[in-house]
Amino acid sequence: MASIRDIAKKTGLSISTISRYMNGSGYVSEKNGRIIQKAVEELNYVPNKHAQAVFDRFSQTIGLVFPSLVNPYLAQMSTILGNAIQSAGYTSILCFTEDDPVKELEAIQLLMGYRVDGMIIFRAINKEVIADLPFPVVSFETSVSEQTVFVSADNYRGGRMAFDHLYAKGCRNLLHVKGPEKFEATEARYHGFKDAADEKELSIDLLEIKHDYELNEDYQASLRKVDFSKYDGIFVFNDINCLLVVNYLQHNGFRVPEDIKVVGFDYAHMTRFMAPALTTIEQPVKQMADACFSALMTLIRGEELNDTKRIIPVRFIQGQTT
Amino acid sequence: MASIRDIAKKTGLSISTISRYMNGSGYVSEKNGRIIQKAVEELNYVPNKHAQAVFDRFSQTIGLVFPSLVNPYLAQMSTILGNAIQSAGYTSILCFTEDDPVKELEAIQLLMGYRVDGMIIFRAINKEVIADLPFPVVSFETSVSEQTVFVSADNYRGGRMAFDHLYAKGCRNLLHVKGPEKFEATEARYHGFKDAADEKELSIDLLEIKHDYELNEDYQASLRKVDFSKYDGIFVFNDINCLLVVNYLQHNGFRVPEDIKVVGFDYAHMTRFMAPALTTIEQPVKQMADACFSALMTLIRGEELNDTKRIIPVRFIQGQTT
Repeated sequence: MASIRDIAKKTGLSISTISRYMNGSGYVSEKNGRIIQKAVEELNYVPNKHAQAVFDRFSQTIGLVFPSLVNPYLAQMSTILGNAIQSAGYTSILCFTEDDPVKELEAIQLLMGYRVDGMIIFRAINKEVIADLPFPVVSFETSVSEQTVFVSADNYRGGRMAFDHLYAKGCRNLLHVKGPEKFEATEARYHGFKDAADEKELSIDLLEIKHDYELNEDYQASLRKVDFSKYDGIFVFNDINCLLVVNYLQHNGFRVPEDIKVVGFDYAHMTRFMAPALTTIEQPVKQMADACFSALMTLIRGEELNDTKRIIPVRFIQGQTT
Repeated sequence: MASIRDIAKKTGLSISTISRYMNGSGYVSEKNGRIIQKAVEELNYVPNKHAQAVFDRFSQTIGLVFPSLVNPYLAQMSTILGNAIQSAGYTSILCFTEDDPVKELEAIQLLMGYRVDGMIIFRAINKEVIADLPFPVVSFETSVSEQTVFVSADNYRGGRMAFDHLYAKGCRNLLHVKGPEKFEATEARYHGFKDAADEKELSIDLLEIKHDYELNEDYQASLRKVDFSKYDGIFVFNDINCLLVVNYLQHNGFRVPEDIKVVGFDYAHMTRFMAPALTTIEQPVKQMADACFSALMTLIRGEELNDTKRIIPVRFIQGQTT
């Protein structure tokens, strides 16, 4: 690929003159400008983004840190965020953590190396490190520190809504299929569900799932251990897992919603089209992504954010499973 | 964030000495090495990856160009590829095209600016530009040029397998729900299906879908226009669309597989867990991702590839829809 040296060689001008012209960072005569422009076109020269990043105050790069994109909700978030980042003239550096603290640290180290202008991180683990980073951070679903911007659905309220709905439908024998303890968002859903049940003096049983993105044989085995005939209402921590539970129930002779009513959480684009249509709590994906992106852009511009906590309201969606 | 200038200031050594030490690119005395190391630790200095990319022959970056990640098959590919890229010590630059030729050109221009060591592109559009790029390219599902490495499932064979299966099950009135004409992969599936039908002197009807990732009201409307009572066998170009068709049929009083048998294509992790379990043609996602990644790494190392066309065998999966 043509380098700035090739332009210098072809035009006989100095690298600093060419660099001034390319970056518009100082005076270059009209004549030399034309000569450089001609060489740029002939050699198909593209300015080196790394060089710009070294010399500019901003690198025009943004780190996107995800556990994985196998969950359709996160895949959709990544698509909305990636497109927004591109449209704003920034570049996305994509990192995966697999919910592993060591992989997360490596990702952060990498993004520091790239002098990113900001980072959006999903399910952050190393809170102390992240709170101290020298660039703006938006944390999705994990509250990192008082100062770190936090975007999340109102998961607690969503858990309460799931209970209220099942209760209103007459369910009194309740199971909660619960996300891993380490995930703040699904913990909040659990606490909302449980607090609402406590207020009605109802106890709830729990089935805890270890991962949200590895749908493997272990999972099926853990479902097989449950005596579902004890329950008339189930709240599952996300839609993907909810579909698995509903399908498992139907496959094992339970009628949904007649025998057991089931409520999920997410309402991702992809799961909306699956059967049966889930009764679920929507965390509006476009609004969530926009909240993350606009908060990060505000911070990158060096402006003040009115709200370091952005809690997005959730919405009840009536489907066929209750 | 601490810069190399801060290290120079603290140690009293020159930037070129520090740079030699950091990059291991020349002699630095043991004593100075210790002084630099101490300052690096005290200032929490992380070498600037952009500066390394400017001065090294390789930028250690790889471009990943996707239309979108809303389709779970591509979301899973992106996760496998991203993790492989990280494990190999490279950085992923993520770009979206939305199947738009202008957005694709912008993405390519961006990756040229970053002097990427290579690129994996999904559903390439600007073939002439891509064939001429000054860095290694692996094209998934689109044959860009004789020289450009091409990785794809054996889509044609998959289309034939879908026909053979439906034919063996006694289906003679066939519909193909076909992907957009511009997608090479789904065209090949169609041609395989059609050629196999021609050999049995059977004609097939077509319902062409405009997009594969926008599951909107238009889609439902196009299904409503079809008189499904004419058919006893349907082959759908991918699993997501296949689930939509099966759910539409069941919702409209058709029994699957008793009245109509339906075959999909993909067998992505996420769709495997949906109900009903689809009879489908698997394009093994891990193997596809590995084929893309290993081909790109071979090219980046400057080695010869024995095969510029990597056609991955597909596999018939018996589900509940036939």
